[in-house]
Amino acid sequence: MNLTEIIQPIKTELLEFERFFKKMMFSKVKLLNIISHYILRQKGKRIRPTLVFLSAKLVGDINESTFHAATLVELLHTATLIHDDVVDESDMRRGFPSLNSIWGNKVAVLVGDFFLAQGLLLSLKHKEYRFLHITSEAVRRMSEGELLEIQTSRSNDIDEEVYFRIISDKTASLISACCELGAASTTDDEVVLYKLKNFGENLGIAFQLRDDLLDYMGETSITGKPVASDIRDGKITLPLIYALKNSSRKESRRVMKIIKNNPRNKDIFYVIDFVKSYGGIDYTLKVAEEYLERAKSLISDFSDSLAKASLLKLADFVLERVS
Amino acid sequence: MNLTEIIQPIKTELLEFERFFKKMMFSKVKLLNIISHYILRQKGKRIRPTLVFLSAKLVGDINESTFHAATLVELLHTATLIHDDVVDESDMRRGFPSLNSIWGNKVAVLVGDFFLAQGLLLSLKHKEYRFLHITSEAVRRMSEGELLEIQTSRSNDIDEEVYFRIISDKTASLISACCELGAASTTDDEVVLYKLKNFGENLGIAFQLRDDLLDYMGETSITGKPVASDIRDGKITLPLIYALKNSSRKESRRVMKIIKNNPRNKDIFYVIDFVKSYGGIDYTLKVAEEYLERAKSLISDFSDSLAKASLLKLADFVLERVS
Repeated sequence: MNLTEIIQPIKTELLEFERFFKKMMFSKVKLLNIISHYILRQKGKRIRPTLVFLSAKLVGDINESTFHAATLVELLHTATLIHDDVVDESDMRRGFPSLNSIWGNKVAVLVGDFFLAQGLLLSLKHKEYRFLHITSEAVRRMSEGELLEIQTSRSNDIDEEVYFRIISDKTASLISACCELGAASTTDDEVVLYKLKNFGENLGIAFQLRDDLLDYMGETSITGKPVASDIRDGKITLPLIYALKNSSRKESRRVMKIIKNNPRNKDIFYVIDFVKSYGGIDYTLKVAEEYLERAKSLISDFSDSLAKASLLKLADFVLERVS
Repeated sequence: MNLTEIIQPIKTELLEFERFFKKMMFSKVKLLNIISHYILRQKGKRIRPTLVFLSAKLVGDINESTFHAATLVELLHTATLIHDDVVDESDMRRGFPSLNSIWGNKVAVLVGDFFLAQGLLLSLKHKEYRFLHITSEAVRRMSEGELLEIQTSRSNDIDEEVYFRIISDKTASLISACCELGAASTTDDEVVLYKLKNFGENLGIAFQLRDDLLDYMGETSITGKPVASDIRDGKITLPLIYALKNSSRKESRRVMKIIKNNPRNKDIFYVIDFVKSYGGIDYTLKVAEEYLERAKSLISDFSDSLAKASLLKLADFVLERVS
């Protein structure tokens, strides 16, 4: 994804954002400050603040509140990544050793908690209660979505409806929150807020569909994951759900048996072929395109601007290397 | 500690509280509900809600807001325990297998996140912004206090001032928050809030001093920890800080060397004797008593009531089996 072009209309704001963000990461505790410096050196892509600023600019004027929203969401995101690495026992993050691998699990979790608390305190200080509501709702949805995913992957009880509930909650919720936050920082117009919230929701779903597609297409350099990691993990995503539904009972049983018994490379190729031959890839691509069209149509009424162009470009980029 | 007597004045409220608490623990996700049932079966002592209700009753009338405060604080506490078990890789909690040992780290962390989000959403729904501020401040202090403790234990750079900063932040902050929350649910009077906040702060510090004392006195049945676990972990608490300050340079160096080199039982007994002979136990006990007196004096002006008697009794119980 070519971010340079997309962030053009909010370049100054993103630079200014770093100042806000940094300010919330430091405290009286030396150890914490050493760790915050370490985190800041491996600067992330700031995709969530980018969505906040672009959404704000699309519907109004970026202001102090927009910076609070972007800071809240990036603090939450940073805390989540740190906690994820503890749970997954990951040694690396963004090409650097993870916090847990350097300072241990306890320190990593505490640093994450500190960032969460700072996000809450920043919002409370500036009476950004709506932001807190949007963000807490996203956190609730993310945990519910991931728990539902684990539950269904254990029971194999998944269909299209459950799949979409999972990916909306675990992935689209935070992207949706970013767009809604940005809009909420400049306007109270419920129709506008509804549009941006749903723009993000549809964009987020398409993004997860792309991720699930790439897993079948072996583009490791984009997802950074080993090819077919979902199949290896016994994760059933849309391409497979569709193929299973459209194959014979005998065939679908055979594929399910393969997936649930530590498949080897030979088995993986068999499953990929099965999914392709029953149209699982084409179908998922078509559905992803529909979500992107829905996202784009939700912001089509706003008058043309650089921010609008960037958001539309962002939507186009989602399926760029897939279709 | 005899809780039955202490909770007498708020017995009905504690029962009613269970209903509020339960309601926030369930969702559409089956797996989550199974886990919540499991957690509710091993009912905790509800010490934090008890402090909330007693503090509310001391200064006013318990109302709907008091229940929100108690629920918020118990959700936060439950989430913290679950996350702690992941970080410490604990297999047991309250005599039952921990969530992480049954469902794995990922599920445990997600369930904790869900409870946190529910606590936030409950407070936002009822516009309990003051509660959110008090609680977020406590979370920030807890993470800072624990990080400072880890930092100083690595550098050995600890004196009485740093020690009190650590225990205020890591332990007293949440007890203080409970008392302030209870009071804030019934009154806006800043003087009253100040008193209850500081009652909790002093009580919390005394409670940690007692814990640190018991570690030297080997009362495993009370702390539930192995005797002298602080010495074994190289943790320097007030009894030792005092003894080190009052011994010769040569002696204090020797003790520090012992502590920092995986002490065996023989070494542990030596350190305990050292601390006792230089008055570290007596001094810590005296300081703890002073904090309890300060706590009690902060609520002495309130007119006599069953709630007041309970809070005073709670303060007396802190050092019951120690002095």
